[in-house]
Amino acid sequence: MIKNIVFIGAGNLATHLALALKQASYNILQIYSRTRLSADILAKQVDADSCSDYAEVRRDADLYVFALSDKALPSALEALKLKNKRLVHTAGSLPMSVFEGYSSCYGVFYPLQTFSKAREVDFSKIPLCIEAISIDLESELLLMGNKISNSVQLLSSNQRKQLHLAAVFTCNFTNHMYHIGQELLQEEGMDFDLLKPLILETAEKVQEMPAQAAQTGPAVRFDEDVIKTHEESLNMHPDFQKLYRFVSESIYHLHSKKK
Amino acid sequence: MIKNIVFIGAGNLATHLALALKQASYNILQIYSRTRLSADILAKQVDADSCSDYAEVRRDADLYVFALSDKALPSALEALKLKNKRLVHTAGSLPMSVFEGYSSCYGVFYPLQTFSKAREVDFSKIPLCIEAISIDLESELLLMGNKISNSVQLLSSNQRKQLHLAAVFTCNFTNHMYHIGQELLQEEGMDFDLLKPLILETAEKVQEMPAQAAQTGPAVRFDEDVIKTHEESLNMHPDFQKLYRFVSESIYHLHSKKK
Repeated sequence: MIKNIVFIGAGNLATHLALALKQASYNILQIYSRTRLSADILAKQVDADSCSDYAEVRRDADLYVFALSDKALPSALEALKLKNKRLVHTAGSLPMSVFEGYSSCYGVFYPLQTFSKAREVDFSKIPLCIEAISIDLESELLLMGNKISNSVQLLSSNQRKQLHLAAVFTCNFTNHMYHIGQELLQEEGMDFDLLKPLILETAEKVQEMPAQAAQTGPAVRFDEDVIKTHEESLNMHPDFQKLYRFVSESIYHLHSKKK
Repeated sequence: MIKNIVFIGAGNLATHLALALKQASYNILQIYSRTRLSADILAKQVDADSCSDYAEVRRDADLYVFALSDKALPSALEALKLKNKRLVHTAGSLPMSVFEGYSSCYGVFYPLQTFSKAREVDFSKIPLCIEAISIDLESELLLMGNKISNSVQLLSSNQRKQLHLAAVFTCNFTNHMYHIGQELLQEEGMDFDLLKPLILETAEKVQEMPAQAAQTGPAVRFDEDVIKTHEESLNMHPDFQKLYRFVSESIYHLHSKKK
């Protein structure tokens, strides 16, 4: 049974996950972070020890949760030598096999959400994607997942990789479209608040209908007049202008293909 | 005082706007649509007459609301000859001056939202952007706007044009990102439901914080390893692949510029 957990990493994801697990009565033993202050801040929130030296990481945890950048993970595994321990990472983009050779008991515990430290999230609604090297660990991770989320899924490394890619489109790229909208409004002395109801409705619409059916605007009907006028408006922003043409064509192609 | 209204057009926008005005006790006299059936369907919902011939459009309305495609508007104005009538259009992309020569009393009544007939919207939360050729008409449109929305704004034609462009980015382009996400998930046998909490949270985040601060993911830190892996995953989708690289670079540039 998993009870005592060590976190390797104290970033946005580690913070939200550690808080959720603490609230579900798990015992967070220790927080490691390269930056002592980050480790201390999170440790205090979840009543844990903290350290910023791999040599100080405790060896008596039931589970080690790696919430590091993809690049930092291999050197952490190299340094920690947790041969017989249960290890999971929380990354969408890394296969489970990154643990090969470092332990015999490993898996993945990937919460699909965009985390910012300042913003509270309701973990119960976050899809948790689980993968494990053994049925035993899989059951334990499922048990743990179900205590903090109502949407726990078993996904293969390939599926998770594709899901992470899809998440980059639907979250990061979408947020970039918001950002561009905000820049354009500011230029003409308008407030970003004007766009907020539209942003919410666009997100709420696809909770109920397929994105294909929800699409509106000049690109889907390839209204050349409007598209040209928009491109002219973007003369001072060659980057946004190229993006405008490119996404408009992509919308049109995807829709014509599907008809 | 505006009381009796004729709608020229019976599409998504006309439908939602006519319903909202009817509910606010305006009298919808008549619905014109090129397609008789569309005119009939909306007319029935708002207890109005219907017609599909410009010659049959009534001359006794206080206001004519044009909710047509941008292309169809000039020929409608040409055919209708409503010289001394109050005319408004509902388009983000058209300047108010399209009415010049067709009447002396005109303006714009632009609700900024994405409308689909099947989906109810709460009009009170939709920003209404108003412009008018005279103070008198402006006051009347403001009065009408405030009866159906809590967010009524005066915007110039230039501002509205820029707002419409920003709306294409934040709504249509965003919805395209959802669409691509959905396609990618289907390929690996996953359900679009997995992405829905992420989509909502991404939209809710920017209600509270600037898009710049809300950005996460590989592009903002330009994590070449993840970006390359994602590009490889998109080998079978050259269109998505180009878009992936392009938007990632755009995110990185916009963020480095702002630092």
